[in-house]
Amino acid sequence: MSQVHERALSRIGFTELVALLHQVFVSHGTSPKVAATLAHNCASAERDGAHSHGIFRIPGYVSTLASGWVNGKAEPVVTDVASGFVRVDAGNGFAQPALEAARPLLVEKARSAGIALLAIHNSHHFAALWPDVEPFAEEGLVALSVVNSMTCVVPHGADRPLFGTNPIAFAAPRADGLPIVFDLATSAIAHGDVQIAARKGERLPAGMGVDSLGQPTQDPKAVLEGGALLPFGGHKGSALSMMVELLAAALTGGNFSFEFNWADHPGARTPWTGQLLIVIDPGKTAGQSFAERSQELVRQMHAAGLRRLPGDRRHRTRAQSDALGIEVDAQELARLRELAGQ
Amino acid sequence: MSQVHERALSRIGFTELVALLHQVFVSHGTSPKVAATLAHNCASAERDGAHSHGIFRIPGYVSTLASGWVNGKAEPVVTDVASGFVRVDAGNGFAQPALEAARPLLVEKARSAGIALLAIHNSHHFAALWPDVEPFAEEGLVALSVVNSMTCVVPHGADRPLFGTNPIAFAAPRADGLPIVFDLATSAIAHGDVQIAARKGERLPAGMGVDSLGQPTQDPKAVLEGGALLPFGGHKGSALSMMVELLAAALTGGNFSFEFNWADHPGARTPWTGQLLIVIDPGKTAGQSFAERSQELVRQMHAAGLRRLPGDRRHRTRAQSDALGIEVDAQELARLRELAGQ
Repeated sequence: MSQVHERALSRIGFTELVALLHQVFVSHGTSPKVAATLAHNCASAERDGAHSHGIFRIPGYVSTLASGWVNGKAEPVVTDVASGFVRVDAGNGFAQPALEAARPLLVEKARSAGIALLAIHNSHHFAALWPDVEPFAEEGLVALSVVNSMTCVVPHGADRPLFGTNPIAFAAPRADGLPIVFDLATSAIAHGDVQIAARKGERLPAGMGVDSLGQPTQDPKAVLEGGALLPFGGHKGSALSMMVELLAAALTGGNFSFEFNWADHPGARTPWTGQLLIVIDPGKTAGQSFAERSQELVRQMHAAGLRRLPGDRRHRTRAQSDALGIEVDAQELARLRELAGQ
Repeated sequence: MSQVHERALSRIGFTELVALLHQVFVSHGTSPKVAATLAHNCASAERDGAHSHGIFRIPGYVSTLASGWVNGKAEPVVTDVASGFVRVDAGNGFAQPALEAARPLLVEKARSAGIALLAIHNSHHFAALWPDVEPFAEEGLVALSVVNSMTCVVPHGADRPLFGTNPIAFAAPRADGLPIVFDLATSAIAHGDVQIAARKGERLPAGMGVDSLGQPTQDPKAVLEGGALLPFGGHKGSALSMMVELLAAALTGGNFSFEFNWADHPGARTPWTGQLLIVIDPGKTAGQSFAERSQELVRQMHAAGLRRLPGDRRHRTRAQSDALGIEVDAQELARLRELAGQ
């Protein structure tokens, strides 16, 4: 795979990539509405240089849809449970259209109650988590989200994998710039990054995973073929991963990462679990502007010698992509066009 | 300090320890109400074997009260901001009495709205964080809390300390046992544990801190004397610590960990910051019992080979202390009695 850097690169505009991905999704069994949401999500990741959750994911989406594991035409059912609590049954569809369906009610509740919770269950999340929280910060809200996934992480001190990669994403507005955003897998490495390393023939850093015998390994293929990941930061990351299982599954009514079984759906890749979002209106705090305060924190982080904030690299790549077009491998682009039936 | 293990040990009942600590606090300038809260909190930590936040903290409390840095008789002012949002001005007093004052309203809102937030500012938190969340889980609620502290952690990629140890605590009920509870510093090690290591003359594990020149060190004294801690888990723990600053300070109206200056109060030890609590009523989820689901997760964690859950060790020590009395160093107990004026 050493020829990876010699491949030809193309550039494609964001709108064009969204349209292309829309066609891919519709051609493989989603409704136009679901396609619009997923295409925008996936193109945004590619635009921001978040390659492990960009067009790299398309074959997984396509094979999952073909397997009948997920309902690409599901209509989410939103329930107004209480003044701060919204529930969505994603109908065995994707989580992003469920979030979209519940979003206006969630924002209304957060602005009125000061805080509101969205519990999504019966859902599939196969994307990055930051696109779910960043838009809230763009409208002045603070957002936190967790999603559980599928068994591939050994809890600290256990013998066998149980948790998913279980990311936590957070976004907060600031006065003089794009929101502060992070999205971190509670595993030592994201699953998508292991897949990319395997594809490129690269080794993993130490401490990321174990092989099928539970022995430490730096070979991404050994991790993917019967091995497992470790949590980040030892028992602390493991505790956070457990919390994600409780919030994203137990609290929403979704499956734990170890509960679903896709054996009857060869080609299925998307975890069938749940997702939780908490949205806070920082305008409820008396006296001072949250965005000014978060800007002050950023100022002090830079003064302490921090060059790059969480989210900075994505935002820089985004600006480049907006100016020059999104850089995409020419072969991958050709494959997308094939999948779109072009 | 090698004679530390040869010291005589005493046992004291929980109620007796609470009464003794109550007298210490009142003798050093707190109101009886504040004394009751802090004494219960501190005795609970000691009872659970959480020594770094037990009676070990008393000299710090006493010297802080003597310095005039904190108001031991503050009356917290609770404001009902919105259907899910409560704010408390702790009046430059301790955070725990502020939580206690707001607690009934917070629980009422969480049960009604499904989720509620408590923003405490103008407060001092000098204790473990788990005692703030565990009681919510004991009444069937899920609770999350963050508190920022004082500059002693170098953000990942920065040159100088900026963040506090900024812990995150979480508690959730389960069907067949005590709540699932964790309380983790987002620093690689808790500040109290560094102080204890220094006192015992023990070395720190690698990767916990740096000396005054920013060089890695395993000497706890070098960390305490001009050095600093590192975040746990590299850039991920650092991102979480940043989130704690934003939630516990920017969102509550409290100070960031780097904002207060106690130079005019020699002897002051308590960080003057803010604290955020989020309480969720899992009964709002349709169809299944949260406590049964969390119990199932625990069952599967044990089946995956996990021997000890977060909180287990504390709960075991608590049972022992309840049966036999709390094991306390005899000299420390004598010192407490002196401080109580006995």
